[in-house]
Amino acid sequence: MGKLVIVGSVAFDEVETLFGKSGVILGGAGTYIGLAAHHFEVDSSIVSVVGGDFPEEYLKVFSDRKINTDGLKIEKEGKTFFWRGKYHDDLIGRDTLETQLNVMENFQPQVPPTYKDAEVVMLGNLHPSVQLSVLEQMQNPKLVVLDTMNFWMDQNMNELKEVISQIDVITINDEEARQLSGEHSLVKANRVIQEMGPKTVVIKKGEHGALLFQEDQMFFAPALPMEEVFDPTGAGDTFAGGFTGYLAKTNDYSFKSMKKAIIYASNLASFCVEKFGPERLLELSPEEVTNRLKIFKSLTQFNIDLA
Amino acid sequence: MGKLVIVGSVAFDEVETLFGKSGVILGGAGTYIGLAAHHFEVDSSIVSVVGGDFPEEYLKVFSDRKINTDGLKIEKEGKTFFWRGKYHDDLIGRDTLETQLNVMENFQPQVPPTYKDAEVVMLGNLHPSVQLSVLEQMQNPKLVVLDTMNFWMDQNMNELKEVISQIDVITINDEEARQLSGEHSLVKANRVIQEMGPKTVVIKKGEHGALLFQEDQMFFAPALPMEEVFDPTGAGDTFAGGFTGYLAKTNDYSFKSMKKAIIYASNLASFCVEKFGPERLLELSPEEVTNRLKIFKSLTQFNIDLA
Repeated sequence: MGKLVIVGSVAFDEVETLFGKSGVILGGAGTYIGLAAHHFEVDSSIVSVVGGDFPEEYLKVFSDRKINTDGLKIEKEGKTFFWRGKYHDDLIGRDTLETQLNVMENFQPQVPPTYKDAEVVMLGNLHPSVQLSVLEQMQNPKLVVLDTMNFWMDQNMNELKEVISQIDVITINDEEARQLSGEHSLVKANRVIQEMGPKTVVIKKGEHGALLFQEDQMFFAPALPMEEVFDPTGAGDTFAGGFTGYLAKTNDYSFKSMKKAIIYASNLASFCVEKFGPERLLELSPEEVTNRLKIFKSLTQFNIDLA
Repeated sequence: MGKLVIVGSVAFDEVETLFGKSGVILGGAGTYIGLAAHHFEVDSSIVSVVGGDFPEEYLKVFSDRKINTDGLKIEKEGKTFFWRGKYHDDLIGRDTLETQLNVMENFQPQVPPTYKDAEVVMLGNLHPSVQLSVLEQMQNPKLVVLDTMNFWMDQNMNELKEVISQIDVITINDEEARQLSGEHSLVKANRVIQEMGPKTVVIKKGEHGALLFQEDQMFFAPALPMEEVFDPTGAGDTFAGGFTGYLAKTNDYSFKSMKKAIIYASNLASFCVEKFGPERLLELSPEEVTNRLKIFKSLTQFNIDLA
């Protein structure tokens, strides 16, 4: 069992889908990553910042799950990062209606001293300079996983490429992989991105699953076909948390282990989209996780004997 | 080993992609289905019609592979069905530039007497009344598979629904499944379509793979992530031919067998898109097929032990 350091926003979200409005709820990449990783009972610590308006009950979400918050700074005078968005009826496209960076604007991440020796680091989607700062504080991580998005490619490509050169795994969606690499084919995009640094590239295709590339090896995890996607917010971060949570638990960073990790990750992400925000993750039982893993197995496993 | 009756166009195609122009080449759903099914060495017969302009060398494509053409009518005075299209740069969207129905306009399919007892029937994408006429000629098929497209939903929905009520398996792409069912979720779409007749629904998602639904069971076959898609023409028909070819070979129409069938189908379709038209299928060796099946296996198979 390894330690896991998670860097990512802890935030307020307000989401609207064709099913209704969430009101202001707990959100942020760090939150989803932490909740997903929690399912592997790893010793994880969230490095983030919130304002004085962040309620005690949300802090309790982490403490109840023994997720360390020594690195979760509370800026009493500031306000918590806020995002408001509306999804299109396909539950894929979305419009950001409001972003208030608030305390996130000048976020200086501080990794707690007892977690500087963590084996696994999950750099959630944040300014590349914040991600770099966290990396500099770590002693000797065995596995660094980075998530990012097109916004940083547009605004801070040089810094982003600097972080990418120092990591082991990048998780990125298909359009972002195309933007980062300049290649339409995801197989080619992967190769270009590998040359930037990470030996392992995970390309998330939303409802179409996720591809795992490691050097010349390739693996695919489908997304679970859903009756209904209720709210996709946080699914990518839940995926990242499931992925790193499993790897931190096993301390096995082989391709074989990573294949299992993206299955676990896809499995957890499939729950995330069933309710608003992290609601479904908060109530999720180990039995539900296992039962759905059985569905994942039956969805993909077949028996063809080849000479 | 069962017999397979294939109904589908045998045609001339002219394709343009960002990689170039094909010139006039052999095409048509029946052609691709036949070539794909051939890989299972089944006893198959193509029911179709061509004009007097259809060259001897194209007929030889079938006879060389022992694909029966007693039901391939040659209308000496007529011209062969012709389709010309141009693909968008994403190699997914396409515009039809020209369609000449020619001899296909009044096609009256005739199943050869020695194939009326075939176990498996593949009704390729054609006018629903043509598909119905073939079904009426069959004695007691064990498995009837139907492919169709949005065009017939727009033009001949009532006749299409009549055919759909008489078949065992429908293969259809995701957008068509949504149109036919009125449901966005493919899980729900499948359920609506099952209620129309077929116990088994195969939803083709192009580069995103294919879903197999049978009653309450679900299976997913990914498409092979490709370096380059050169020309997607015929990939769906190749898929249908691989699917029915495998099932006709094994005479096993169980869900377990169909899972294998869509893996074989996806595997063959992945070759089809590598060159213009059926070129790649024509030169394909059994070794290549097996080697790529190994890639499919490693792409999807994992080992998670669940209690």
